[in-house]
Amino acid sequence: MSQGTLYILSAPSGAGKSSLVSALLDQTDAIKVSVSHTTRAPRPGEKDGVNYNFVSVDQFKALIADNAFLEHAEVFGNFYGTSRLWLEDQLSQGIDIILEIDWQGAQQVRKLMPETAGIFILPPSREELQKRLDNRGQDSAEIIAGRMAEAISEMSHYNEYDYVIINDDFDQALAELKAVIIAQRQKLTCQQARHGKLLTDLLSENH
Amino acid sequence: MSQGTLYILSAPSGAGKSSLVSALLDQTDAIKVSVSHTTRAPRPGEKDGVNYNFVSVDQFKALIADNAFLEHAEVFGNFYGTSRLWLEDQLSQGIDIILEIDWQGAQQVRKLMPETAGIFILPPSREELQKRLDNRGQDSAEIIAGRMAEAISEMSHYNEYDYVIINDDFDQALAELKAVIIAQRQKLTCQQARHGKLLTDLLSENH
Ligand SMILES: Nc1nc2c(ncn2[C@@H]2O[C@H](COP(=O)(O)OP(=O)(O)OP(=O)(O)O)[C@@H](O)[C@H]2O)c(=O)[nH]1
Ligand SMILES: Nc1nc2c(ncn2[C@@H]2O[C@H](COP(=O)(O)OP(=O)(O)OP(=O)(O)O)[C@@H](O)[C@H]2O)c(=O)[nH]1
Repeated sequence: MSQGTLYILSAPSGAGKSSLVSALLDQTDAIKVSVSHTTRAPRPGEKDGVNYNFVSVDQFKALIADNAFLEHAEVFGNFYGTSRLWLEDQLSQGIDIILEIDWQGAQQVRKLMPETAGIFILPPSREELQKRLDNRGQDSAEIIAGRMAEAISEMSHYNEYDYVIINDDFDQALAELKAVIIAQRQKLTCQQARHGKLLTDLLSENH
Repeated sequence: MSQGTLYILSAPSGAGKSSLVSALLDQTDAIKVSVSHTTRAPRPGEKDGVNYNFVSVDQFKALIADNAFLEHAEVFGNFYGTSRLWLEDQLSQGIDIILEIDWQGAQQVRKLMPETAGIFILPPSREELQKRLDNRGQDSAEIIAGRMAEAISEMSHYNEYDYVIINDDFDQALAELKAVIIAQRQKLTCQQARHGKLLTDLLSENH
């Protein structure tokens, strides 16, 4: 059985990462997104166990002590972590897994699992990013400037990733994201794991 | 200006490589296939300068002496070679280039240009390959067995390539081949070359 591929997807807030991932999952089989644990409060509409597993800081620390996380990080004042067990189980079943995590988590995962494919999503321009950060609600200029600073801080790590996708036209960005997944599945080692019998058969001298 | 990517496509005869490549070129921009020189005789329907540049053995040897070839090899009794100048010119214009060459040429090119992406096309089964080799004409069992031996010899190098595509369903194989090209264009270094200005702009502190 071939091992699934682990994808890391990072982006600044406002790049459209979550919409891309959900469209990708609708159109692709054998791929799932990992649901992280976080200590931040749920936003209106967010569901526990779906968007995140919402936990207290004490619960989060207990999970760290239990070695339950593959990686964890503090991102802009809240804790976030990826549970190890579910992920390892899915990968071993040949399911591809997407981690939507920040650059700090990405660095940790890359060290542990060098076979990971990292994808960074960027907005098409500074102006468009500004607009998308503004549109989130009726926040003060100060809060919006703070979000922009956070976005720039995240984006400054784009060059640690294997692939960069610019989300200008949504459908094109989605096609590019899908292409990365489909291409990865044609890589030599993936194909050897999946089609071992065919390969032996094609190459045998006596038929 | 971003440098084009060089692709090496190899396959045994009967894997459907040429049909895949011609469909790919119809559907993808900024990609071309290199027209090789060969000393083998044109087949019915083949056009000089389109399928191959057909030359004599003496002409071929003069081109070798002129250092005109990026790579050249003897494949089953005939000489084949890739001209260097056209290829370097196209790549420098940002055009992706496909070389349809055998495993010997692939090894030479990989040494000279390690950034090359190698793709190997395989038939879906031994039986199907046999069928496709039979269908070529009304040849003797001996000639067909010879072709099968050549196909096995070429296929024995599949594991020197980055990607392996199995041509079972044509449309799926085409989609997979396209995905490899699209994915390659999202790689970090390609995107840095293509979107330098955007990247600087997104990351600047003062706006
Ligand atoms: N290291 C790490 N980072 C995570 C994890 N889960 C989420 N993050 C990151 O934490 C940041 C904040 O995420 P959210 O609280 O959902 O806020 P957001 O700004 O709406 O983020 P997006 O949903 O990505 O737009 C984002 O950069 C996420 O990628 C995790 O398990 N580990
Ligand atoms: N090294 C090298 N090999 C080449 C070149 N051009 C073609 N070949 C290979 O030479 C082999 C024979 O090609 P052809 O004479 O066209 O015969 P064929 O069996 O119909 O090959 P296909 O067209 O690939 O089905 C194939 O494996 C080609 O990939 C070249 O420029 N260099």
